[in-house]
Amino acid sequence: MEIMNEQQIEKFYRSEVSIIEKKLRTAFINSEPKSLYDPCAYALESGGKRLRPFLVIISAKAVGGKTKNVYNAALAVEILHNFTLIHDDIMDNADKRRGRASLHKVYDANTAILAGDNLMAVSYKYLTKDCKKNVPEIVDHFTQGIIEICEGQSYDKDFELKKNVTIEEYLTMIEKKTAALAEMCCCIGAKIVGGSKSEVNNMAEYGRNLGMAFQLQDDLLDIFGDEKEFGKKVGGDLIEGKKTYLFLKALEKAIGEDKKLLQKVIKNKGIRPNEVNKYKSLYSRLNVFEETKKEIRKYSKNALKCVSKVKDSESKDILSWLTHKLVDRIN
Amino acid sequence: MEIMNEQQIEKFYRSEVSIIEKKLRTAFINSEPKSLYDPCAYALESGGKRLRPFLVIISAKAVGGKTKNVYNAALAVEILHNFTLIHDDIMDNADKRRGRASLHKVYDANTAILAGDNLMAVSYKYLTKDCKKNVPEIVDHFTQGIIEICEGQSYDKDFELKKNVTIEEYLTMIEKKTAALAEMCCCIGAKIVGGSKSEVNNMAEYGRNLGMAFQLQDDLLDIFGDEKEFGKKVGGDLIEGKKTYLFLKALEKAIGEDKKLLQKVIKNKGIRPNEVNKYKSLYSRLNVFEETKKEIRKYSKNALKCVSKVKDSESKDILSWLTHKLVDRIN
Repeated sequence: MEIMNEQQIEKFYRSEVSIIEKKLRTAFINSEPKSLYDPCAYALESGGKRLRPFLVIISAKAVGGKTKNVYNAALAVEILHNFTLIHDDIMDNADKRRGRASLHKVYDANTAILAGDNLMAVSYKYLTKDCKKNVPEIVDHFTQGIIEICEGQSYDKDFELKKNVTIEEYLTMIEKKTAALAEMCCCIGAKIVGGSKSEVNNMAEYGRNLGMAFQLQDDLLDIFGDEKEFGKKVGGDLIEGKKTYLFLKALEKAIGEDKKLLQKVIKNKGIRPNEVNKYKSLYSRLNVFEETKKEIRKYSKNALKCVSKVKDSESKDILSWLTHKLVDRIN
Repeated sequence: MEIMNEQQIEKFYRSEVSIIEKKLRTAFINSEPKSLYDPCAYALESGGKRLRPFLVIISAKAVGGKTKNVYNAALAVEILHNFTLIHDDIMDNADKRRGRASLHKVYDANTAILAGDNLMAVSYKYLTKDCKKNVPEIVDHFTQGIIEICEGQSYDKDFELKKNVTIEEYLTMIEKKTAALAEMCCCIGAKIVGGSKSEVNNMAEYGRNLGMAFQLQDDLLDIFGDEKEFGKKVGGDLIEGKKTYLFLKALEKAIGEDKKLLQKVIKNKGIRPNEVNKYKSLYSRLNVFEETKKEIRKYSKNALKCVSKVKDSESKDILSWLTHKLVDRIN
């Protein structure tokens, strides 16, 4: 039985996120030097869904905690996430981020490296503000999250050059690069407010599964999504020669000429924009859309199983809504 | 009255540092992916005096603690220090570090950015291993140290372009870029083993003053040091147009043609190697050597005043030895 309707849930989400937004806007208001903190502030003003802080907040609520007791931790994970985006954009030489110039384009690479470094440190500053007990464990979970993101990013870079990436290797990579942070958010949110060991583990498992489903859905939307709604160029991953779940699944299933066509993507490190539709048809022919959806459903089912174990009824509804919202972004 | 002679002190220093060296060598022995951890290991094998971990260790001993209780924290500050060196070398486009190729030259800038990021996170992992109580405060001191390093580095970058840097601004910059880390090392070393508030503050003050004296001595050695002993090219700071304490002091005192000669360094963003001796003579004529020595003595005196308040007699001798060793590197 549902306690909250969709309208109420969305109101709750918007209200919590607006608190985080406000705190983000004022985080560096009197900080010096400006040459360091203006770039930091620019990065934090990027907008976005603020999903990671929301995961901290809703996980605290899910185990019976007050959301206001984890606002600093929520801020910490958003600041941390933005540090990773800044450094990723440098490494990927990405000019844009959420429709704005990326930080190293507005300033320069050195400024962006330093701003990112500072944001990582600042994220710890906010984290400890909310830590009353179990502090070493909470800090360790936070740290472990960062280390896994770095490892995941390193695997991702390796895969650009590696010709025979397996689906298993790919899943390990996104587990570290994307899912570990979602897991950490849920884990610390529940832990800070004193959730029991099994409650904390349950929320962490929810986060990891949600993160996996989210990333695979992202892979899917890159080619099967609506450009207007998704906000990214259709087929961007193929153009850049990224070995996504869909690509690796297609490669696994293809034979003959189809296989050669896919191997060309690896050999040429990408395709031309006018070839996207050809590959989209190939993916459809190989049933890759359905295969990926199946994998996504596996993870979202696991996530919803964790939701079913949550005691707080409101949180149950909110977590269920969040899962569907993220995973059913199309279809 | 002295408890330990120089030979005994040096033996203690070598023995403690060798423990840290050994731990550094094995830190990433089974870590994956190699593309991330090989660069991390390369950075940690750089040698160096391992002064910062030694500050953690001796500060723990100074307040009556066991040195083995802070080995992980000592490791943490050395790992952290190496993260800053990696990113600094990228920003400065420095090819060499302690006689070896800098990390971004052995690999590439992206690998070095990521290795540095990972090392910062790993440093927190080691830090918390030694934290039994006062954990949020210890983590906060550690974080504050990193934030100040970033701020100091940002001021340093600003000063490259800024024409009228004051001596006061310069001192603020090195306080953040160099002295804050030495302060943090002493502070956490004393705090982890349960030093009293006044003991912790005394050690922190020692570290900050030592750090200031150390950096000013570094500035001095750059131009008045022995190339063979110091291991760096004489006059490197002038060649790069760095606004060091000596340069700013000279600028303050110079008039007429001398002043014009110094302003040329700012305008041209450095000098040619064959001009170093000319500027060295100018510094001598302006009595800059003595002025800098006076400033160094001020900080080392403050540091030694803190040493005099230390209760543990062995530590007193060791801290006194360390101060003289670092500050009297020449003269």
